[in-house]
Amino acid sequence: MAFDVPQGYRLGSVRCGIKREAGRPDLTLIVSDRPATAAGVYTQNRVFAAPVALDRERTPDGSIRAVVCNSGNANACTGQRGLDDAREMARLAAEVCGASPEQALVLSTGVIGEFMPMTKIAAGIAEAAQELGNDSDSLIAAARGMMTTDTVEKLAGRTLKLTSGEATLVGMAKGAAMIGPNMATMLAVVLTDAALAPADAQTALTESVRDSFNCISVEGHMSTNDSVLLLANGAAGGTPLSGDDLAAFSEALGQVCMELARAIPADGEGAEHLITIDVEGCADRQAAHKIAKTVAESALVKTAVAGADPNWGRIVSAAGYSGVVFDPARVDLLVNGTVLYRQGAPVEFDKVAVSDSIRSNRDTSIVLRFGEGEGRVRFWTTDLTAEYVRLNADYHT
Amino acid sequence: MAFDVPQGYRLGSVRCGIKREAGRPDLTLIVSDRPATAAGVYTQNRVFAAPVALDRERTPDGSIRAVVCNSGNANACTGQRGLDDAREMARLAAEVCGASPEQALVLSTGVIGEFMPMTKIAAGIAEAAQELGNDSDSLIAAARGMMTTDTVEKLAGRTLKLTSGEATLVGMAKGAAMIGPNMATMLAVVLTDAALAPADAQTALTESVRDSFNCISVEGHMSTNDSVLLLANGAAGGTPLSGDDLAAFSEALGQVCMELARAIPADGEGAEHLITIDVEGCADRQAAHKIAKTVAESALVKTAVAGADPNWGRIVSAAGYSGVVFDPARVDLLVNGTVLYRQGAPVEFDKVAVSDSIRSNRDTSIVLRFGEGEGRVRFWTTDLTAEYVRLNADYHT
Repeated sequence: MAFDVPQGYRLGSVRCGIKREAGRPDLTLIVSDRPATAAGVYTQNRVFAAPVALDRERTPDGSIRAVVCNSGNANACTGQRGLDDAREMARLAAEVCGASPEQALVLSTGVIGEFMPMTKIAAGIAEAAQELGNDSDSLIAAARGMMTTDTVEKLAGRTLKLTSGEATLVGMAKGAAMIGPNMATMLAVVLTDAALAPADAQTALTESVRDSFNCISVEGHMSTNDSVLLLANGAAGGTPLSGDDLAAFSEALGQVCMELARAIPADGEGAEHLITIDVEGCADRQAAHKIAKTVAESALVKTAVAGADPNWGRIVSAAGYSGVVFDPARVDLLVNGTVLYRQGAPVEFDKVAVSDSIRSNRDTSIVLRFGEGEGRVRFWTTDLTAEYVRLNADYHT
Repeated sequence: MAFDVPQGYRLGSVRCGIKREAGRPDLTLIVSDRPATAAGVYTQNRVFAAPVALDRERTPDGSIRAVVCNSGNANACTGQRGLDDAREMARLAAEVCGASPEQALVLSTGVIGEFMPMTKIAAGIAEAAQELGNDSDSLIAAARGMMTTDTVEKLAGRTLKLTSGEATLVGMAKGAAMIGPNMATMLAVVLTDAALAPADAQTALTESVRDSFNCISVEGHMSTNDSVLLLANGAAGGTPLSGDDLAAFSEALGQVCMELARAIPADGEGAEHLITIDVEGCADRQAAHKIAKTVAESALVKTAVAGADPNWGRIVSAAGYSGVVFDPARVDLLVNGTVLYRQGAPVEFDKVAVSDSIRSNRDTSIVLRFGEGEGRVRFWTTDLTAEYVRLNADYHT
């Protein structure tokens, strides 16, 4: 699949030797030819990595020129030296595009608790600066440079007709259901040539992440490095978006984030099902999110799906201990379109047919309806298989 | 092992045909020869079973004469008919000991969403009333009548010297790490011949449960039926305990509950390690509990222990997303007595030795120390093995 790269960006990816495995790229450089508005959403983990600390300080902002991203080392739990290293990475990335040190952002993913190999990183940034391109191949290479346990690069794009003309958005993400020593860090960067005011960029990104990256859960862990960045360089022309144009952009950004987010649990070595959980009829969105997350993270629900078991009790009971107050007599549950539970009581259904539909499809749908209000959310997770546990229990020395 | 049964109680257990498996007892009757003070602590799940609704209404109270407990059917998600059945079970149990209908409590565990086989239950109660005894064998039989997926009965007892004389406590529990269609319901009953005022009994039980049954987590699920009951019939003589005697009793009750609670994750078909998590130095107990529970329920931590992997990153990161605010630079972590992480940074340690110590012991110790205050908690969980998933993914038709 080919993607349009927004105007005014160049991307490059190299192998500089951070990852142990030979042949896999481990450093990506993204350059904007003009200062770009940048927004960021970061992990809420109390233990966060040095690049998160750096980027948090620097976003939202109106003059970012470069993003450097490495895989193989997360630069987490590395203290002051880690912060200095992240700052030096930003300086090097800014330098190769003639910008000042504070005009760059940093993303890292990989093992935690080890210092960055700065000599390799410096050489990698210099080399990546020679590889920059604006075509679909450069984009795919950039996405691969972020990958750790991912089996496939994750990309999504949109072209928008705005009153001011056409604008392009493209996003890349890394993250996979299978957990390696990198603790399933999720990174994403969305680039657009639309013009955005920093505050609008931040609002649009925060809302998009809420409905996408914050609605996936593989093993419930939030990593030290999770980050989503948005760069908007305005190279498509025009003044910063507002009104209907801003709304259209936000909608497209939401779709790109959703597509990228859904690709993370879908890329599951060891997982056999992608489970979509729709929670509807809650008092508000927050209540729906809390229930969906609790169901998504229930080992009982996840093993039931792995075993093609239409076990309504595990699902309803998980909703019950989510901490959300609801009337149990007004709960309905559907699995793959079949009603298993209606108004607080199980109903007769064809267990063999529902089990077969789970077994023979990679996608499983769980719909939980409450009678409390209009709050709803869509959430994604994976099943929990013996193979998944085997992969994650492997002792990495 | 033999246990002293407190004075004034008689226990009996029979098979009345609720469980499908032949030969396993499925109904236990406990009778107090005199009205007993009764206290209860129940599931906080919004979806709770009929016996929980009944017992909640009836505790704390000063005149309970009987507890009937069945395994094989949880009487959950059964609507008004379920409530009527629970009430009828209580009436039948009260009747066989000459008490009035409201003087009995009910516990149920087993499959959910099915109506109680009341004809079998009625016959079972009548038969159990003929089997009542006050010796250790009767107690063991009673504990077995509660069991579902448990591989062993769980009992604990204490004898107390009080200023008023001697008092005995004995407790039985069911619940196991392996999850069956019963959703790992945890039931416990503690009997004592000490005299207690209902309010004191309730306070002592609530506090004991907080430090014991509420500090275990196998798969994070809270079932529809979880219940812990305390009966205190005063048959040892004397007036209701107060002052030092009440404190000594509360201490002993806490120990009995702790012993029973710890036996639940320890009885883990499919689990290979019992993990004890000590969280210390938090702002308060609640903060420590929140961190311990988050670590205990992390699939990443649990698979790491299964793989004998001293993965400090997974543990520290789980603490980080618990929602508790702490200074990451003041965190220490020990696994099986070895420091892996000190004041916010990993330290050099002998990975092979720590891995060997995990692999060669059934018990794994995780100690997390924070620099926030004096709040602490001890929590228990199991590892997560491929065998465990295989057992729980089995499709039961």
